[in-house]
Amino acid sequence: MAEYRAALQDMNFLLEDVFAVAQDWQSMPALQEMVDVDTARAILDEAAKLTETLIAPNARAADEEGIHFSDGVVTTPVGYKEQFAELAAGGWVGVGANPEYGGMGLPKVLSAQYEEMMCAADISFSLYSGLTAGAIMTLDLHGSDALKDLYLPRMTSGEWTGTMCLTEPHCGTDLGIIRTKAVPNADGSFALTGTKIFITGGEHDLVENIVHLVLAKLPDAPAGTKGISLFLVPKFLVNEDGSLGERNPVFAGSTEHKMGIHASATCVMNFDGATGWLVGEPHRGLAAMFTMMNYERLGVGIQGLGAAARSYGIALAYALDRRQGRGAKATQEPSAEADPLLVHGDIRRMLLTMKAFIEGGRAFSSYVGQQLDRAKFANDAGERERADQLVALLTPVAKAFMTDTGLEATIHGQQILGGHGYVREWGQEQWVRDCRIAQIYEGTNGIQALDLLGRKVVGSRGQLLQPLLEDIREFLATRSDDWAAEYELLEESADLLEDVSKDILGRVAEDENIINSVAVEYLHLVGYVSYAWLWLRMARAAESSQHSAAFIQGKVKTAKFFFAKLLPRIHALIPAIEAGSEELFSFTPEEF
Amino acid sequence: MAEYRAALQDMNFLLEDVFAVAQDWQSMPALQEMVDVDTARAILDEAAKLTETLIAPNARAADEEGIHFSDGVVTTPVGYKEQFAELAAGGWVGVGANPEYGGMGLPKVLSAQYEEMMCAADISFSLYSGLTAGAIMTLDLHGSDALKDLYLPRMTSGEWTGTMCLTEPHCGTDLGIIRTKAVPNADGSFALTGTKIFITGGEHDLVENIVHLVLAKLPDAPAGTKGISLFLVPKFLVNEDGSLGERNPVFAGSTEHKMGIHASATCVMNFDGATGWLVGEPHRGLAAMFTMMNYERLGVGIQGLGAAARSYGIALAYALDRRQGRGAKATQEPSAEADPLLVHGDIRRMLLTMKAFIEGGRAFSSYVGQQLDRAKFANDAGERERADQLVALLTPVAKAFMTDTGLEATIHGQQILGGHGYVREWGQEQWVRDCRIAQIYEGTNGIQALDLLGRKVVGSRGQLLQPLLEDIREFLATRSDDWAAEYELLEESADLLEDVSKDILGRVAEDENIINSVAVEYLHLVGYVSYAWLWLRMARAAESSQHSAAFIQGKVKTAKFFFAKLLPRIHALIPAIEAGSEELFSFTPEEF
Repeated sequence: MAEYRAALQDMNFLLEDVFAVAQDWQSMPALQEMVDVDTARAILDEAAKLTETLIAPNARAADEEGIHFSDGVVTTPVGYKEQFAELAAGGWVGVGANPEYGGMGLPKVLSAQYEEMMCAADISFSLYSGLTAGAIMTLDLHGSDALKDLYLPRMTSGEWTGTMCLTEPHCGTDLGIIRTKAVPNADGSFALTGTKIFITGGEHDLVENIVHLVLAKLPDAPAGTKGISLFLVPKFLVNEDGSLGERNPVFAGSTEHKMGIHASATCVMNFDGATGWLVGEPHRGLAAMFTMMNYERLGVGIQGLGAAARSYGIALAYALDRRQGRGAKATQEPSAEADPLLVHGDIRRMLLTMKAFIEGGRAFSSYVGQQLDRAKFANDAGERERADQLVALLTPVAKAFMTDTGLEATIHGQQILGGHGYVREWGQEQWVRDCRIAQIYEGTNGIQALDLLGRKVVGSRGQLLQPLLEDIREFLATRSDDWAAEYELLEESADLLEDVSKDILGRVAEDENIINSVAVEYLHLVGYVSYAWLWLRMARAAESSQHSAAFIQGKVKTAKFFFAKLLPRIHALIPAIEAGSEELFSFTPEEF
Repeated sequence: MAEYRAALQDMNFLLEDVFAVAQDWQSMPALQEMVDVDTARAILDEAAKLTETLIAPNARAADEEGIHFSDGVVTTPVGYKEQFAELAAGGWVGVGANPEYGGMGLPKVLSAQYEEMMCAADISFSLYSGLTAGAIMTLDLHGSDALKDLYLPRMTSGEWTGTMCLTEPHCGTDLGIIRTKAVPNADGSFALTGTKIFITGGEHDLVENIVHLVLAKLPDAPAGTKGISLFLVPKFLVNEDGSLGERNPVFAGSTEHKMGIHASATCVMNFDGATGWLVGEPHRGLAAMFTMMNYERLGVGIQGLGAAARSYGIALAYALDRRQGRGAKATQEPSAEADPLLVHGDIRRMLLTMKAFIEGGRAFSSYVGQQLDRAKFANDAGERERADQLVALLTPVAKAFMTDTGLEATIHGQQILGGHGYVREWGQEQWVRDCRIAQIYEGTNGIQALDLLGRKVVGSRGQLLQPLLEDIREFLATRSDDWAAEYELLEESADLLEDVSKDILGRVAEDENIINSVAVEYLHLVGYVSYAWLWLRMARAAESSQHSAAFIQGKVKTAKFFFAKLLPRIHALIPAIEAGSEELFSFTPEEF
């Protein structure tokens, strides 16, 4: 199996040549002293070293071994404990966390690159610190000072990890009907009772304490999503000096046997009157959880990207090395038994589809990361608001489109290896299995699509779409003769997206089901149009950059490939959207 | 997990109402005494009973357990031995085999339905008898009478199984470069030496002998595919009376650890001077193997169909039962905590996409099966030839399109269950893993596409496409007002297919790489157009049938769904085909 190599050149290209993030950072008081281009390069170099040499080489063995569960105790695969200790020692767990509690406080556009490397190295392993980062952010935004002072320093340092406990056996998507109860204790704490499932990192042996953030209902809770509160429930109670006290009655009842991410402990967690503390306001728990959702969802999108990037590295090395058959043109190597796979058009089609989705996705997540940073750090309130709108619009696209195209990419990566891609030995099938979960958790991709079309686009009467269309149309002014055809296609695509959106808005009043019937196709349409824009941006930026000729030509030609071979998929999506809900809702249950 | 239920009503509908196979059978001397509608119904009922009650219930446990390998010995999962004995006792191993040697000799259009049931019940298990059937057919067509008399009765009865040994460590697709040697012995037999990999059922404990059909090179063999011969190499040598003699030195060196089909023994087979006998002419081995390829490839396509059908059964049961959220319209069940999943448009979209691919695929494989039967049994030479052309054209489509859409369907089926689809407990992720191999083995889907576009369409200068276009256009004469829009779309699609084909033919001379660059998209185009035709045929046949209203309405509405939501995908394929090879071959290796 080819060794993992982080896409450092492409990442630096995006940060510097495409998105000019240094200009942003210079203008932001919170960042201007902290990070510049050189720091960013140094950080990415370190992240590459860590993931390439420490984490990636163990991913397949960890997948084979999986986690072990016995009597409530989870043992992680050989090597994970040492890996996590090194990760923590390097400060990587708190890469995006508040510096007040020891975090690095890096901008998202930068830490997104680190996250990709972590996922490309080992998705299972990345989840232990990834979920912790989410818990840190939630607590930082909504916890009391007392809770923050006690927990955040040790979570940020990676001494303790965190979880998110939402799903229950009877509900995942529909959190309004959760049954876990929180009853007030005399001392201001609460006693939590209930069962949570699918809890990533719910129990493990990497660190000495685990901090669960748990959704539960207070005794006086109103029904539905407006009656959900958020609680912090540690595995071990924590004394005032930060030392560990009694074991809290929250136990892993079992672990799930899954299609993939075998080295990630997915636990059933039983809360048997466990002591917890309220985080944020009563009954406002779901809102508190959602504040970190934009970050987490981008992170899950990046899992799709990371899986695809790793799979591409393996597939490309194989296609260059493996000899099978002859190309259609006269061979360059008549003395060899056969030509390398790369002479075959269909192998190129699959590799380039992967490359177009990976580098397009890397650009997309960087763009969304940049907007997250602007929403948080920009000086100007108007700029913050505009960035916030872009984040709101594009986060569900990042989560769903990057994982849907990620799965397609890993399937191509497996197919390129033929039978060798199906056997575990080559490590290629793991990326299909590990990528697949990213389409499901953190809100299924169908739910992301509903969020995009229902809450965001229709909910704003189309207003949230405007900043994206503006950005695209502003870019159209850079039109050049060399790229006339692509600029025209981009303009056309943006117009089509706007027209389709208006069409849906016009039909909402008369058709309740239009949104839930066409949302997934609509999300893909936004994805393809956004990637087209970013591909053309990248191609133009590459042309005027100082990178190697191979890098520049690779960018330019992949942009051409994207417009010729992948963008046409919107012509399948648009008629399906226009067909609306009728063909779905004419069926009675018996007719399925 | 929902229990497996064979789609008997749909199968009978296809045989009787859509394809009127009884008319064919009546006109064919080899079949007219053997099978009629009543026999066919009885056979399918028995097959359903067998697969539903004996095989399907063990599939998940067998997947969990997998096969065991130790010192060259393969042990199959608990229950497989008994299952295989019952299968053999019922005559099912020889379902399509020559009656002269004890086979049932059923027409393919009928046995294809049985094969779907076997795959939907357990793909791993189905392979042991499926490969045996392929070996039986090859031997029957090409073996000497002596070999046939000695081996066929016991293979047909299921006392012994068979394998196909093609792939070697350095070559799978490119069989011209195999290295296994066959050296003549004094007694007319041969000594075979070499290593074969990915041998399905190469070693196991289900029966007492295994008959390997092996590709190897004679000492005087010309280079390339014209120097390959076919040999029969039994695990145990067979005495003249059929009793077993010495152990032949052909041993399993190891078994593969795979993404799926865990209960199928995929073996590395070492031939250490093993005794074998020539099957067919020297150096004509590949041709001999290919005669059974059309049957085998249709069988692999049916694996995609079977996986999708089983996944659909589980997903539909879940969508009817699981309550999560509320539909967009006022609920019918205000007293329940939530509505069933089926109220959600996106769940319906996924279920109906599955249904459209499954029932479309069942119709397609039945159509190809009918043509296989006509090619073999029709009285009229012209009819045989025409059927043969349709088989040649559509077999690669059946193999690749039914498995590509099969994978899409199983992924939808998994997605409908959310997180529960990702954990193994519900059994839904197994169908994704097990379906995935069908896109790879028996010639990858990329190879199928090359076969379709290169050898079949371009190779015949488009002539092989004509019988299909004729069948479609003949059907257009049944146009009715109710279906005006769909008939128009079908006519348009067929015209587009013809135009695109002509366009490619016109470009072949100047562009060597056009075929290998657009073949996969072209195959999908043929698939969607064919399914559109069959969906409209089914809808029209259903309207005038005696089936239940729910069945008829299900057909009619799914046809409408297919035209509205899935057929538009051709508008993504056509521009990608028209873009040709340029965007793929402009890249140097360094630019990937």
